Amino acid sequence: MMDKLLFMFDTDPHPSVFDTVVAYDGGADRVAGYADVTPDNVGALVDGTIYTRGGDEKKNTAIFIGGGSMAKGEELLECVKKRFFANFRVSVMLDSNGSNTTAAAGVALLAKTGDLKGKKAVVLAGTGPVGMRAGAMLASEGCEVVLTSRKQDRADAAAKQISERFDVKCSGFEASNPDQFAEAVKDANIVFAAGGIGIELLKEDAWKDNPNIELIADCNAQPPLGVEGLEATDKGKERHGKTVFGALGIGGLKLKLHRALIGKLFESQDNVFDAEEIYAAAKEMA
Amino acid sequence: MMDKLLFMFDTDPHPSVFDTVVAYDGGADRVAGYADVTPDNVGALVDGTIYTRGGDEKKNTAIFIGGGSMAKGEELLECVKKRFFANFRVSVMLDSNGSNTTAAAGVALLAKTGDLKGKKAVVLAGTGPVGMRAGAMLASEGCEVVLTSRKQDRADAAAKQISERFDVKCSGFEASNPDQFAEAVKDANIVFAAGGIGIELLKEDAWKDNPNIELIADCNAQPPLGVEGLEATDKGKERHGKTVFGALGIGGLKLKLHRALIGKLFESQDNVFDAEEIYAAAKEMA
Amino acid sequence: MMDKLLFMFDTDPHPSVFDTVVAYDGGADRVAGYADVTPDNVGALVDGTIYTRGGDEKKNTAIFIGGGSMAKGEELLECVKKRFFANFRVSVMLDSNGSNTTAAAGVALLAKTGDLKGKKAVVLAGTGPVGMRAGAMLASEGCEVVLTSRKQDRADAAAKQISERFDVKCSGFEASNPDQFAEAVKDANIVFAAGGIGIELLKEDAWKDNPNIELIADCNAQPPLGVEGLEATDKGKERHGKTVFGALGIGGLKLKLHRALIGKLFESQDNVFDAEEIYAAAKEMA
Repeated sequence: MMDKLLFMFDTDPHPSVFDTVVAYDGGADRVAGYADVTPDNVGALVDGTIYTRGGDEKKNTAIFIGGGSMAKGEELLECVKKRFFANFRVSVMLDSNGSNTTAAAGVALLAKTGDLKGKKAVVLAGTGPVGMRAGAMLASEGCEVVLTSRKQDRADAAAKQISERFDVKCSGFEASNPDQFAEAVKDANIVFAAGGIGIELLKEDAWKDNPNIELIADCNAQPPLGVEGLEATDKGKERHGKTVFGALGIGGLKLKLHRALIGKLFESQDNVFDAEEIYAAAKEMA
Repeated sequence: MMDKLLFMFDTDPHPSVFDTVVAYDGGADRVAGYADVTPDNVGALVDGTIYTRGGDEKKNTAIFIGGGSMAKGEELLECVKKRFFANFRVSVMLDSNGSNTTAAAGVALLAKTGDLKGKKAVVLAGTGPVGMRAGAMLASEGCEVVLTSRKQDRADAAAKQISERFDVKCSGFEASNPDQFAEAVKDANIVFAAGGIGIELLKEDAWKDNPNIELIADCNAQPPLGVEGLEATDKGKERHGKTVFGALGIGGLKLKLHRALIGKLFESQDNVFDAEEIYAAAKEMA
Repeated sequence: MMDKLLFMFDTDPHPSVFDTVVAYDGGADRVAGYADVTPDNVGALVDGTIYTRGGDEKKNTAIFIGGGSMAKGEELLECVKKRFFANFRVSVMLDSNGSNTTAAAGVALLAKTGDLKGKKAVVLAGTGPVGMRAGAMLASEGCEVVLTSRKQDRADAAAKQISERFDVKCSGFEASNPDQFAEAVKDANIVFAAGGIGIELLKEDAWKDNPNIELIADCNAQPPLGVEGLEATDKGKERHGKTVFGALGIGGLKLKLHRALIGKLFESQDNVFDAEEIYAAAKEMA
């Protein structure tokens, strides 16, 4: 039987180790990582995936787009799709920085607790790949979404990008210190912390007595966590009357989802897995 | 059993995806791609292939040289061979940009239609890897060969390189627009289009009523094709009284040949596959 | 069963081909090589190894640190270990330039001939990865160790680094021509040549009649050898009354050791293989 080959086009200087491990665990037989992939050089790489196997064999070749930048990842996905023509196409998945799978797992777990429609959701440090996708998915559930960034213009730019890509409403909020983060979540019902590893964003005092907040999710697994007072392993845990999810609590579903989607990539030659498809899969698995 | 390992030394900034897929399909168990390989850094890489397995085990390690530049590929092959000594050698194949396999498949299909001896063959946009190898193989069949380039000096340089490497006669011709391409093929019996993807070189008007032209081959699979009036899937098709071959028509044999040669690399530890060996294999398989 | 994945973090611009081949032969199912790994970028790579598999699965992921510089390799090992926390860790092996395995094989073969305690050992061209590890291992056997370099300050720096890392005594000696190398080994009992490929360090005249010298090991497999008068295949051969080991004689054990350690990496999730562990394994296998 023909090997299932996954070509990882990464926008960073090293192809992601994380994505490589999950690719194997998800069912790829061989993974080839490509670093520093750009719109300028991706064309020849795509050609290598579409001209090398005939007919039904093509479903055994797939492309995974990763790297630290959502904007670069989205641009690359467009370039890849444009290079395809007629039957010369393979399946492709976009998950820059685990954006889609992590956000989908986190939001799907929140959505499983009850209807999110009409609630206000604040994504802390939300201009990275995970935050932007979480914002989009929360908006797709009918939430009013606010993204914070250290700079108002970056927050606004990310909000605008989400609004345009997903046809939802989303706004930006400047926050870079504990007081500003506390202010940002004051009237929120949902808090989604999407900051970097080992960076605390929200103090326990800022949420434990806040009567509006019902749900908290945090994607940072390494102490100090993004939200003080959570444990990374929390998964639907009640704390101060709120239902909370830590990074490892979310991470279990994220990994299961990520692996499952790699497997599904090879089921046909024309899958395109981006936010919508990945979030739908997450809701089925949550 | 020991894994069959293929080390792909690529002269470009990314190892070829195309060559990676074909390497697996040809029977390599593991493929490791190396980018930006140069005469300066290839020595240590070669050492890794020859000092790691003993005696008969060495046939399970092989080297594939690829990348966009024929000149760099040839130089690298020389460096690799020079690094070998005594029994410290592994099999190696040179196929920069699919040069040898594509050219061999194309020319072998032309040669299968009848004796090419004494015919005039014009390789359009012939200074790239495929064009230069096609020129050499056509010359080896006894054709008078002309290569075109946008610049006379580049055409002459490529023709000279072929003449010296293969001990054949070959000349250059400057052509960069439809009229010049038409002029270039006026008294040709064989037209071999070796231009880039999606670039039209020859108008249908320039060949359909030309009584000299008997055979046409085109290596560009993506519309617009290199020769107007062909279909990429043509394989020995009669059009306007000429026998024509499109890129996908050639590509089938090219892939079969490329895969078969990867498999043969691992049959002994001292194969060297370059134009001559690859063309001989193509003629057997055409 | 879960694939055994080896991530090779290499400090050089290309991941080592040598280490890749041995990784497969040692039992890794998949090897992913990373080039230009530095303390600045290794963190994210390590995260990919520790967050992707749960519990007992983690023993199927391991890290191998290689590259031409011992100092960079040691620094990287420290960074990798620092990134681990609690149960979030995988096994790791340091073998920059084959340093630990080559030195361990060489010194273990010398040690097998008899007690080395109290003997004077001179490591020629000893400031590279192999030389520095050989010096450390000889010192651990109770030898008085001298390292030569073309520059006194480089010899002293390497000797100091060994002394500090392994808590042993070691000194430097400047030698760059035949007379100086002869002088360096005048009162040595053990000569360990650790120079580059194809570079002769010691003339036969400098050792054949020297009554002090009992044991000679040379790590250079490519003619001219590091020590004139040896054959690369010598393995405990008597020459002029001395017991000598050539690079291929040592290389057999080195390869066996290197392969075995790769296999052992995957036996638990918390192995750290550096000089001490690798030398202990070599003595068992010698």
